[in-house]
Amino acid sequence: MIKLGIFLNTNYEADENVVARFREAVEQVRLARDYGFSSVCVGQHFLTEGQKLQPIPLLSRLATESGDMRLLPGILLLPLFNPVYVAEELATLDVLSGGRVLFGIGVGYRDVEFEAFGVRKSDRAGRLEESLEVIKRLWTEDEVAFEGRFFRIPKVEVHTRPLQRPHPPIWVAAQADAGVRRAARVGDVLFLNPQARISTLRDQAELYRRIRRELGRPIPDEMACHKEVFIAPDMDTALREGKPFVEGKLRMYARWGQARELPATSAGFADEGFDDLRRDRVIVGDPEHCIAEFRRYHDEVGITHFSCVLNWPGMQNWQVIRSIQLLGERVLPALR
Amino acid sequence: MIKLGIFLNTNYEADENVVARFREAVEQVRLARDYGFSSVCVGQHFLTEGQKLQPIPLLSRLATESGDMRLLPGILLLPLFNPVYVAEELATLDVLSGGRVLFGIGVGYRDVEFEAFGVRKSDRAGRLEESLEVIKRLWTEDEVAFEGRFFRIPKVEVHTRPLQRPHPPIWVAAQADAGVRRAARVGDVLFLNPQARISTLRDQAELYRRIRRELGRPIPDEMACHKEVFIAPDMDTALREGKPFVEGKLRMYARWGQARELPATSAGFADEGFDDLRRDRVIVGDPEHCIAEFRRYHDEVGITHFSCVLNWPGMQNWQVIRSIQLLGERVLPALR
Repeated sequence: MIKLGIFLNTNYEADENVVARFREAVEQVRLARDYGFSSVCVGQHFLTEGQKLQPIPLLSRLATESGDMRLLPGILLLPLFNPVYVAEELATLDVLSGGRVLFGIGVGYRDVEFEAFGVRKSDRAGRLEESLEVIKRLWTEDEVAFEGRFFRIPKVEVHTRPLQRPHPPIWVAAQADAGVRRAARVGDVLFLNPQARISTLRDQAELYRRIRRELGRPIPDEMACHKEVFIAPDMDTALREGKPFVEGKLRMYARWGQARELPATSAGFADEGFDDLRRDRVIVGDPEHCIAEFRRYHDEVGITHFSCVLNWPGMQNWQVIRSIQLLGERVLPALR
Repeated sequence: MIKLGIFLNTNYEADENVVARFREAVEQVRLARDYGFSSVCVGQHFLTEGQKLQPIPLLSRLATESGDMRLLPGILLLPLFNPVYVAEELATLDVLSGGRVLFGIGVGYRDVEFEAFGVRKSDRAGRLEESLEVIKRLWTEDEVAFEGRFFRIPKVEVHTRPLQRPHPPIWVAAQADAGVRRAARVGDVLFLNPQARISTLRDQAELYRRIRRELGRPIPDEMACHKEVFIAPDMDTALREGKPFVEGKLRMYARWGQARELPATSAGFADEGFDDLRRDRVIVGDPEHCIAEFRRYHDEVGITHFSCVLNWPGMQNWQVIRSIQLLGERVLPALR
């Protein structure tokens, strides 16, 4: 069985009506819930060029509309924060959602975020690992004291816990191979990158399984990936409407510096044409094409849970609604 | 007109069912909304002795149940955070609640919080003021660059804004007189302390007005205060049931080190008996007594908005519901 979730675009242009966009997001979540989507995901970035809604308050608000869907802050930029804060915010979100949190974390890559938070980018991996260690201890132990390289917790009695025990599944985002190794070491689920080519994803999934075996850790049943998806009733419409969105979105990621984070085999996406992107990185097509593509990523890579990026900057709500409906009615039933 | 809000207790004992407590909180907010309460407030603390729900996710979740009530994180421990984070989290909460945020901030006082967040307590006032300056600039300017003592923002274009323009009202909590001066200088509304005696509150309100005049800033129409309130249908019940809660709650604050923060005229609350506390610090009584007390604090101090602490650690939900109903049916109409 292949699960689909929806990733909400919460990066808006400077002049958009953000309240209207928020209401549309609520509507999209209700629809996805009714079609049986498995998760709703909101990304985290700071000081973006336009307007942004942050994942913790937005997912908390969406707890009422999302039924049994998992709530996925995807991903939280863990190196930027104090672990006590993250542990208690996420515990609250887990309690108020009845235990539906997936704890999506990553190291981040945008220079402006590290600068504004006073964190050295070269410390990001170390900070993520140390922070995660502290968070797990706060979530599972009755008394904690910690003295690390980046964080220090005086001896405290703690009982603020997520509802899920021992804790929500930890989804670790990976872009570079170093991220894949980290995910194998410290996480529960590998969360692969949407811009990587399928060949890179295949190599990274294999690397992940090899390291898990070396560590004597079980290979998880679940493997996740963000995936940019543009679906339309017929192939011509999908290609014609989808092209400007795909190209615009990938250029934004390139501007943010994300291409540099990927392995060399996948780095050059900003210079590729639409047909190249569509062949190996993004899914654009009619329902039959999308079914075949999800199956290809599942069979060749092992991905079981796609967080589908359906609403891209500049897209109209009716296009997103149409995508959710087509995936819900024509694609999801074929993947069960 | 005197406004009443409700402060939700979100500090639970280690062995309480936090999901049940959360559901009760939702029910309390619905009831308060229907009676015309003006605000719902959730406090922020970390590494408390029991379990805690954090204000940003909880208030985001309560956006759907709270009607026109203002949402008051009260207070946020501003010195512990990076201002970029606070600016964007609060902007999101303001957007998803239709512009209902009151931005309650304070310096904090619990040693364990400063230690765990790696912040020197002696820097707390400087960090609050600098952080607030950055937040206001991020909320109101199209391009921001900042170089301060504690925070540094590289030059960025920013458009992530709260819905309220120029920004949500800034409620600055004050315990010591230094806090009152700070509130006069940098805030929109003075947010007074629940444990201070009425005589201290009177002096602090006068100090606040004097400093506002010296600064040439207008005296706000609104002045706010947390106030511990235990109301019952008759005086005997109020006194009998209320005593253990009042004493327990004040001992908790004393254990957390709050008494040291107050002026000498109000510091010794942990050593006072119930009758002393009730005379000058907490409101415990039947509806007529409560009406008279709210009016006394209004007339003598100038308080116009009480964030009523009705649900204290260990209290049963029916007692809180009864308090909301009595305030809503018997007290609020008399204060309009």
